[in-house]
Order: sequence, then structure tokens, then C-alpha cells
Amino acid sequence: MFLRLVTFTAALTWLAAPATAQRVSQAPAPSEIVAAAPASDWVAIAPADLLVMDLVTDAKGRDRRVVIQLMPPPFSAGWVANIRTLAKAHWWDGTSINRVQDNYVAQWGDPDGEDVAKAKPLPPGLVKVSQNEYTFRLDWRNVPDELVNEQYELDPSVSRLGNRDKYAGFTGHIDGWPIAGSEFGQRPASTRKYHPLMAWPVHCYAMVGVGRGMPPDTGTGAELYTVIGHAPRHLDRNIALVGRVIEGIENLSSLPRGKGPLGFYDAAQGDERVPILRIRLGDAVADLPSYEYLSPGSAAFARYADARANRRDPFFITPAGGADVCNIPVPVRRHGTP
Amino acid sequence: MFLRLVTFTAALTWLAAPATAQRVSQAPAPSEIVAAAPASDWVAIAPADLLVMDLVTDAKGRDRRVVIQLMPPPFSAGWVANIRTLAKAHWWDGTSINRVQDNYVAQWGDPDGEDVAKAKPLPPGLVKVSQNEYTFRLDWRNVPDELVNEQYELDPSVSRLGNRDKYAGFTGHIDGWPIAGSEFGQRPASTRKYHPLMAWPVHCYAMVGVGRGMPPDTGTGAELYTVIGHAPRHLDRNIALVGRVIEGIENLSSLPRGKGPLGFYDAAQGDERVPILRIRLGDAVADLPSYEYLSPGSAAFARYADARANRRDPFFITPAGGADVCNIPVPVRRHGTP
Repeated sequence: MFLRLVTFTAALTWLAAPATAQRVSQAPAPSEIVAAAPASDWVAIAPADLLVMDLVTDAKGRDRRVVIQLMPPPFSAGWVANIRTLAKAHWWDGTSINRVQDNYVAQWGDPDGEDVAKAKPLPPGLVKVSQNEYTFRLDWRNVPDELVNEQYELDPSVSRLGNRDKYAGFTGHIDGWPIAGSEFGQRPASTRKYHPLMAWPVHCYAMVGVGRGMPPDTGTGAELYTVIGHAPRHLDRNIALVGRVIEGIENLSSLPRGKGPLGFYDAAQGDERVPILRIRLGDAVADLPSYEYLSPGSAAFARYADARANRRDPFFITPAGGADVCNIPVPVRRHGTP
Repeated sequence: MFLRLVTFTAALTWLAAPATAQRVSQAPAPSEIVAAAPASDWVAIAPADLLVMDLVTDAKGRDRRVVIQLMPPPFSAGWVANIRTLAKAHWWDGTSINRVQDNYVAQWGDPDGEDVAKAKPLPPGLVKVSQNEYTFRLDWRNVPDELVNEQYELDPSVSRLGNRDKYAGFTGHIDGWPIAGSEFGQRPASTRKYHPLMAWPVHCYAMVGVGRGMPPDTGTGAELYTVIGHAPRHLDRNIALVGRVIEGIENLSSLPRGKGPLGFYDAAQGDERVPILRIRLGDAVADLPSYEYLSPGSAAFARYADARANRRDPFFITPAGGADVCNIPVPVRRHGTP
């Protein structure tokens, strides 16, 4: 798999173009740009890369399904492999949502996981992953010539001004995922293709990560959480991210908050824990629709990112002039739906 | 009232100090720093500056109260005055929570507000506020000599590197509120006290704003929302912010999501709308505790902000090196509680 780094260079160029009154009044909203994107700008997500969690029905008898897209290599490959093993072993069936901390995370797994005597035994075959795997090396030598296009020819000043944020030297999307990384240096032409960068996935809303104990523990993948508040970027490079919720996050984000430390349900709230019926890989779920994401390398995505940073649709009077990477979520939809 | 601008200069200095292994292992978490702050670092919130919303009890018969702190002048003074008028008229009593959009906002007011024929009449005395009031002028002439201390003597490079973000030239706290503003320029000594800046409140998690129609409408204050997701900073300077939820936000953020456009409850979900029993100003509520916030000008806050940006407590292995203004929420508590 080749790494495809996409930043908001195109969006910044767009911003520089003068806007006429006519254009302002007709400017589409980001959702309209996404709806109008051609089919060729969408990338299918393989069912095998989905993790499907079914919770017990709610108080009104409604189904509650959460669909998670797992990250491809080189991101968090060890943990993702463990998650596949756990799903195939049906390990999560009968576990529960144990923690819902407002403006932070919803977390699931074995409610007795902290208690050695009562913890549910893990299946065989799980690998132990090193802390070094929280980041990966974005090495230009791995980028084939045909992909070394103008998207990679970042002017360092653009990187600083357009994509640098409080947490990283650059932000952007690689293979459809929100990624941050170390500062771009000045790259002389001769070393252009040999400049390694450290990069890591970003804790945006709905991203899924691996709960763990104190370092050097890195977690197995049995304990998972998703972000349900403002991006907790201080967790970047400290915990493994393994995917994102692409459908049904409201089944986690709208759960009652836990009243115990860190938002775990306390003893009096034991009955608030929502049981997990089952978690399966997508290719083991018969009734699963097909999903696709809007390629961050597409022209439609560039317009969408620009519109997220500079709202010109009629409701807005002052475009922000920028957007952090978590405010430009990669659009995901059921295949072919508008 | 004097404007007190506090940025993270102190925090940045702290970062530069070398950390010994001993110190790292004993580093307190942000919550521990807040708990240890002396009583003198806390600022009491006047009950008259609180807005207290009581929802009907939940399915288990539990009370649901949301406490909002209103912003002081010069922020959004016209809208805040309207909100006081609406509360004193008991206008919200019997209205409801009408919109809950995941990763965005929960909104309340008259469910028929869009329908001229059915809309609930507003009380007399509401003022119409100009769009110009979305921002305010931070004028050094208004800052008294005794407050022109080193906190104001910002080195522009610090402003750029430490507090600039994707949305604004600087971010920080004024009078305990998250504020962004236009870029600091180079200020010659002779004009040091005469440099006007445009500034505005920031749409962080739990901030409360004023719903409105298409511009130039600015809303009356009868339709309010709070942020329940990643900071929607594109709304800054486009909608009035009037306060923040300081207690009970889980009573809004954990509500079922609306399935209609923009997260409004659709016809089939009408029964999901939670009725509002009453909204009152804090000085009209008999059983209200006292609240206080940690002064962003205090030494404890500087240590807290630094720890938010650079977690050194044992769980963390890689400090982020920065934090956006919404990831440094101003701590608020019931008076005197740890």
C-alpha cells in the first residue's frame, strides 16, 4: 500500500480567488459539495475492514448498531490484527459499554477486566505491540514516483501556516485518515524523496482507540473507546488509534454518563451498562450495506475542505479562514446514497 | 469592568524548564493541580449571572438541571439582556429541547418558533442586536495601568507560536472566557497602550449561543443552543455566544439525536422532545449552590494550562507540546469543593 498524503494546499489556493457577490450567494454548503461529488471520487471500504458492534435494543426496542472502519497498515497494524482475532473468537459477545465520560470517550470491553480473578480470558494469538507503533515513519523512499506530485511538493510556509497546528508540524489526510506529523523541513531537491517524517493518527471525534494500563503497557485491543467530545489531541502518540465509527456513533455518544471516576459506571449505575450482543468483522455480517469514503485526493474533497474552512453559504457572514483537521471529517456514506 | 487578557506565556516558559526523572514521575495531573489551587485563586460567580434550566425528570424519575453562566459585558451584552428579560417573563416554561445534532449542538426554545401562526409570542422589551456585536474591540486605552503587566507585553512571536491557531491570530482567556482575536501586530512602545484588537468568544464545548435565522437576523436569545461536540469554530463571529454550561451538560449531551434535518426531532420523534419545566436567573432559584471558577490569571491556572498542553502524569509518555484554547477549559466548581 502506498502512502498518499493530502493536505489542504488546494483549499488555500481556492481561498485566494476573489469571490463575487453572485458566487457568495450561490456558494454551496460542504454537505452539498459532498452530495454532488462524482461516483469516481468515492473509495469503497472492504467489508473485511469493518467491525460491526450490535448492542441490545434500546428501551423502545430499537436496534443499536455501531459500524467501525479499521485502519489499514501502516497504522497500528499489531492492534488491528488483535482486534480481528478477538472478533473472530466472538470475544466481545456478552461484554458491555462500561464507561461514558462526557466530552471525552465511550469505552467498551470486559467490565471485570481490571480484576485479575474475574477477568474474561483472552483468546490465544494476541500479539504484544510496542509503544514505538504509536507513530510511523512516513518515508519518501516508499512513495512511488508517480505519486510524488504537487501534493507532496509542499512549500514549508504553506505547511506552517496552513496545516501546522498546536499539536503538530503538519496535519492532513493519508489514505483517508486524519494524520498529524513532525514539522516539514526544507527539503533540498537532491534529497526530496528521502526525507523521513514521523507521523501519527489524530484523536478526532469518532476515532476509535485502544484502552491500556500504565506504560509500557499498550493494550491488546480488547478494551476499545471512541471519542465523543472535543478532540483529545493530548492522547495522540500516547494511545493506539485503530479506526473510526462511520455509522451509529449516536448509540454510544447519547448513552448516560458514568458517575464514577473517569466516567465509568459506578456500583449504583451497574444497570446503565449496555450489553454488547456481538462484535463481528464486516465480512461475517450478512445484512451489512456497502460503505465508501470521499477520497481526500479528489477535487470534490478539496472543495469540501475549503468550504469547511471558509463557509460562504448564505447562513454565514464571516468565513473562519481555516479549519483544524478534526473539523474536516472525511465524508463516509452508504454506497451510492446522496 | 476591566478586560483581563491572559495567554499561555507562563505555560510556555514552564515547558522550557528541564524536567528531571524525579519530577516527571511525580508530575500532577491537571485535575490534581486544580484541586490543590488555593481558595484565593477562585472567583465567585454571582447568582444573577446564572441561568438555571430545569427539564422534566428522566425515565427513572431523576431531576435534570442545567446551570449556565452568562457572559459579562463587553461580550454579547444585548443578547444577554434579552435572555434576562425572557427568564424574568418565564417565557421558556413549557418550551422544549427541539434539536440534538450529534457532534454539534443541543438547542432549545419554542418548538413552533419557525411557524409565524403558531409561534409563542415574545415578551416586550427585547432589543434587536447588530451583527457588529459578534466581535468587540479590545482597546488598550481601556486597560488600566496597573493591569498593563507582563501578561499584556506579548512578544509577537510568542503570540504566533503559542497562541495563534487555525482560526485566529491569538487565543487566550479574558475574564475567565475563551477568547480569540485578530493577530497582534508589532506595537512600538509609544503606542503600546493604544493598539485596538478585534476579539470574539470561542465556540468551545459547552458554550451557549443564540440561534438565529438568515443574516442580518441575529436572533433574540429565545432560541439557545450549547455545543456538544468538537468545537465548531466556523460559528465564531457568525453567531452570538452568551455563556457556557457549568453543570449538568450531560442532561443535554446524552439526549437522543434528532433524525430530521440539522438534528431537529422529526414528526415521528415528537415525543423525544424533552419539555422544559422552567428557566430562571440564578438569583430567583432558592436551592442553588454557589459556583466559582479558577482565575486564568492565577498561578494555579498557568500550571493547569501547562499540564493540559504537556501531560507529565504517569499515564503519558509523549507530551503534546501544545493545546488549543478549547482543550484548556476554565475549571468551574461548586464553592469550596475539592
